Amino acid sequence: MTTTIRLRADALRAFTSELFQRLGLPADDAAIASDVLVRADLRGVETHGIRNLQKNYVDHFRAGRANPRPQIRVLAESPCTALVDGDGGLGLVVGVRAMDLCIEKAKAAGVGIVVVRRSRHFGMAGYYSERCLEHGLIGVAMSDNGDACVVPTYGRQPMLNTNPLSVAAPAGEEPDFLLDMATSVVPGNRLARARERGQKIPLGWGCDQEGTPCDDPQAVLKARWLLPLGSTPELSSHKGYGLGVVVDILTGVLGGGLYGNLVDRAPADEPWLDRGSAAHFFLALRVDLFRPLSDFQSTMDDMLRSLKSSERASGYDRIYVHGEKEYEALQERSQHGIPYERQVIDGLNALAAEFGVDPIRVPAVFDGESEPLEWKPARAG
Amino acid sequence: MTTTIRLRADALRAFTSELFQRLGLPADDAAIASDVLVRADLRGVETHGIRNLQKNYVDHFRAGRANPRPQIRVLAESPCTALVDGDGGLGLVVGVRAMDLCIEKAKAAGVGIVVVRRSRHFGMAGYYSERCLEHGLIGVAMSDNGDACVVPTYGRQPMLNTNPLSVAAPAGEEPDFLLDMATSVVPGNRLARARERGQKIPLGWGCDQEGTPCDDPQAVLKARWLLPLGSTPELSSHKGYGLGVVVDILTGVLGGGLYGNLVDRAPADEPWLDRGSAAHFFLALRVDLFRPLSDFQSTMDDMLRSLKSSERASGYDRIYVHGEKEYEALQERSQHGIPYERQVIDGLNALAAEFGVDPIRVPAVFDGESEPLEWKPARAG
Repeated sequence: MTTTIRLRADALRAFTSELFQRLGLPADDAAIASDVLVRADLRGVETHGIRNLQKNYVDHFRAGRANPRPQIRVLAESPCTALVDGDGGLGLVVGVRAMDLCIEKAKAAGVGIVVVRRSRHFGMAGYYSERCLEHGLIGVAMSDNGDACVVPTYGRQPMLNTNPLSVAAPAGEEPDFLLDMATSVVPGNRLARARERGQKIPLGWGCDQEGTPCDDPQAVLKARWLLPLGSTPELSSHKGYGLGVVVDILTGVLGGGLYGNLVDRAPADEPWLDRGSAAHFFLALRVDLFRPLSDFQSTMDDMLRSLKSSERASGYDRIYVHGEKEYEALQERSQHGIPYERQVIDGLNALAAEFGVDPIRVPAVFDGESEPLEWKPARAG
Repeated sequence: MTTTIRLRADALRAFTSELFQRLGLPADDAAIASDVLVRADLRGVETHGIRNLQKNYVDHFRAGRANPRPQIRVLAESPCTALVDGDGGLGLVVGVRAMDLCIEKAKAAGVGIVVVRRSRHFGMAGYYSERCLEHGLIGVAMSDNGDACVVPTYGRQPMLNTNPLSVAAPAGEEPDFLLDMATSVVPGNRLARARERGQKIPLGWGCDQEGTPCDDPQAVLKARWLLPLGSTPELSSHKGYGLGVVVDILTGVLGGGLYGNLVDRAPADEPWLDRGSAAHFFLALRVDLFRPLSDFQSTMDDMLRSLKSSERASGYDRIYVHGEKEYEALQERSQHGIPYERQVIDGLNALAAEFGVDPIRVPAVFDGESEPLEWKPARAG
């Protein structure tokens, strides 16, 4: 008897969208937010998908901190730039609306740069950069997603969020290039997973209270002390640290929003700041201002193929390019549904019960993986 | 008896400029190129300064590959973007002219993005991003500086240059933020230094011919196999690898120039390509389109100070921010001259003899560091 349940992506989208509506979101915003989360799972980026629904999103509504009906406003604007105020709305919604404005500007002016203040956790950074691809644009997305949990090089106090950054570029016949990375060695969820499974973590992911690298996920999580990409000073952790600071400069410092450990210092004149606050940066760039898009795409194909076919190190049988694994997951999961452990579905159904949403109905007992399950709302009227 | 000789920055600039003129550069280009190299040494970035004069620059003129009088042309242009052809000129010159065009565009349009093809090694990336600061701009510079010497994650074949990237942002009272990093764990020169001194290197800087991390700089240099930032798959080297690919996308792929290991594959239709070829990307962004510059600078100061005063890890007595060490070196060296080992000066004087430049005259024997030396050209007429 397996506990793996497969859900159709559209079923999960409908379910999540219904839940977001019960939390007060307008239908179109609820559809956007659920698409961002479900796409992370479709692409196999499970650290940023539906598993975070309660902790990163629902709990903030319960606490009365997230704004279900934000007045998203453009505070300053030029032909290629904008500063957007998210009014405490979900980053999943504010982020998409801001990136769409960025795309619009890039299409008209060649480049779009949009900075967002007073938003909240925006999920998978790659969702936003990838959104540029169908328009023949290179896309960039960055976010300070809240809580400080990364220490600077030589430090032991959390001063930076994992500050993810993503870059997407359109290929031709190859899967599009999509880099989506925390500027820490790993995102925090990777430690929680290791703890759940009772596993040690590699030395270099996090440190203990003295700032010394440590392989016990419990000790690292308790302290919330992740290490910046590079891990140690001698392996150049100042670079990961510096990239994290760059993300803060382009998001919160440039936008007058959240950066660094500002939440911990709780300035009295920024009452909107809380542990769920976030700030974003988006950039979109028209490829065809430099070269015909098809030429660029052919060169992308050449580069990606040359990387994939280059000589492999001893003990490895494949070289990947960024976005390739996720593309393969997307193909497979679009067709066969997204696999979840039973307790993930149980968690969703607990939320469904609380907010009056029809539950996802799973067979009580079955052998092997489930067939991809459907879900339809049982709406009154 | 010490072998440390201090040279005044303006003396070294004049000397180097004279040498570049003997190599055929116009006087103003020679002045630009020498300033880029000398500023690296002034800032203590010795891996990118005058020590590279022969290998990265003079040797390319000797081989007839570098073009001393390039016709730098704008091939495509919009209000905020340009594609520039460097005509095989020194990256030090082409880069500065391209960044100046980028700054001009940013001042007029808010954002400037300039991509450069057919250039050569541009020295220290931070020189270009820093150039934006006095204009109240955030600056970004990236380069594929030539030879492939970095392996992808799981690979053992050099497929990427160290592909440096730099970001500069203006602070108020604090030294400006300036991140300048190779996307490999270390730049290649760090290995050459270790080899000269007969030292082992930390495991994680480079790998042997099987793609396995290796602490012998000789073995790593022979193979030219550096590891991407992150060092190993379990410490997320795919992120350093991905950042390297991003630099290639924004430079050579977007500009129709050098990227990846293209030189090794020597396409017949690109006869201009050689091991000294390079491609660049520059971005400049007006801060005051988002917030008043002085507000931004105050926030920068707050962030930088909070980082520097955060709790230190056990065994470390200071936390740095990026550009701070280099700012301190700049202050000290501007006043007291730049220190060099005797053999660096000997190397410069060997070039001087070859190209008919008056040598730098050093005392034959002296105790302690030399006084900062001056140099004036002994021009005929």
